[in-house]
Amino acid sequence: MSPSAPRTGPAGAPPAGSRPGGRSARVRAAVHRAVRELVADESGDALTIPVVAARAGVHATTVYRRWGSVGELLSDVATSRFTGGFVVPDTGSLRGDLERYAANMARDLSDPDTLALVRATLGSGGEQGAAACQGDRRQQLAAILEREEARGGGTPSLDHLTDALVAPLYYRAVFTDLPLATAWARDLVARLLPDEAPQPPADR
Amino acid sequence: MSPSAPRTGPAGAPPAGSRPGGRSARVRAAVHRAVRELVADESGDALTIPVVAARAGVHATTVYRRWGSVGELLSDVATSRFTGGFVVPDTGSLRGDLERYAANMARDLSDPDTLALVRATLGSGGEQGAAACQGDRRQQLAAILEREEARGGGTPSLDHLTDALVAPLYYRAVFTDLPLATAWARDLVARLLPDEAPQPPADR
Repeated sequence: MSPSAPRTGPAGAPPAGSRPGGRSARVRAAVHRAVRELVADESGDALTIPVVAARAGVHATTVYRRWGSVGELLSDVATSRFTGGFVVPDTGSLRGDLERYAANMARDLSDPDTLALVRATLGSGGEQGAAACQGDRRQQLAAILEREEARGGGTPSLDHLTDALVAPLYYRAVFTDLPLATAWARDLVARLLPDEAPQPPADR
Repeated sequence: MSPSAPRTGPAGAPPAGSRPGGRSARVRAAVHRAVRELVADESGDALTIPVVAARAGVHATTVYRRWGSVGELLSDVATSRFTGGFVVPDTGSLRGDLERYAANMARDLSDPDTLALVRATLGSGGEQGAAACQGDRRQQLAAILEREEARGGGTPSLDHLTDALVAPLYYRAVFTDLPLATAWARDLVARLLPDEAPQPPADR
């Protein structure tokens, strides 16, 4: 291993799991930052490892050795972006938790840089990239459901919750130019938990 | 314009709107086929115009001149793939039409080559690519709803239908490795049109 020293300085705090201040952590931070910036600036040109390496100020061979391909690299960046660091709402009710969770997701996926990262990672990362874009959402939603069960409430299954809440949010963000409005996200929860406000088929 | 003759022969019938047998139509067919093959073979390498041109047996300048970028090219291929050519079911009932439509979508999106094209197009095509992956689904679903209204039946809104049926199908295909089972697709319709089989929150 003979990575060149990053031309740019270390980018903020080193990621968890790396030795703080180590050269490896600095390279990782510089490369991740370069990927995030290039994806956000997306000009329609393909993201390549030489371009990322030049922007990060490291040798391309270092990037190839550590990540192997653009798909692996994007998956790693997406995993960092979408795993951990999110607070799971605990409002005391399933409805409250899901409304808060959906509103947070809607806000997050409305960010153009986040959306660009999701699309780029789906484009190059295959199954691994797709999983990376999910982060730990399933575990987070499972935790919300478990709390409701502990309170003695009925809950939808995790798969039903995913179909009814997570899927429309990701779909609308990734496939359409419709806004991810908070009121719309709340409607998704109302359809999923209809006891308070029954939804006829022609509900809007 | 001085495109080289395609090294490969013309790929099947020329697309609608092109002069049958014209050189332009042959170039388009060869380039589209090259893109579909390269996306299906996806090795994790970036799809670039020179690579597509070499595979199609045309000059890269021809591809740049006609499509401009990989994103434009993928969007064009996805539009061809997902627009027209699908028969909208007409079973005589909203439930029957939607079950058939959802089963068709599930089968289509279960094809690995189709999925690879969707992911690649999302990755490079921006808003235009995202729209291309939808093809004319909104018009098709609107037609199904209009027929039900003409029969005097109540219908969900097109947006509700999209959230409840289209979104989970695309989401499960693109973001997860879960199977797009026909029974699951039928469950989505049952949740959307609950009059026959009411769905409590804890439905499975």
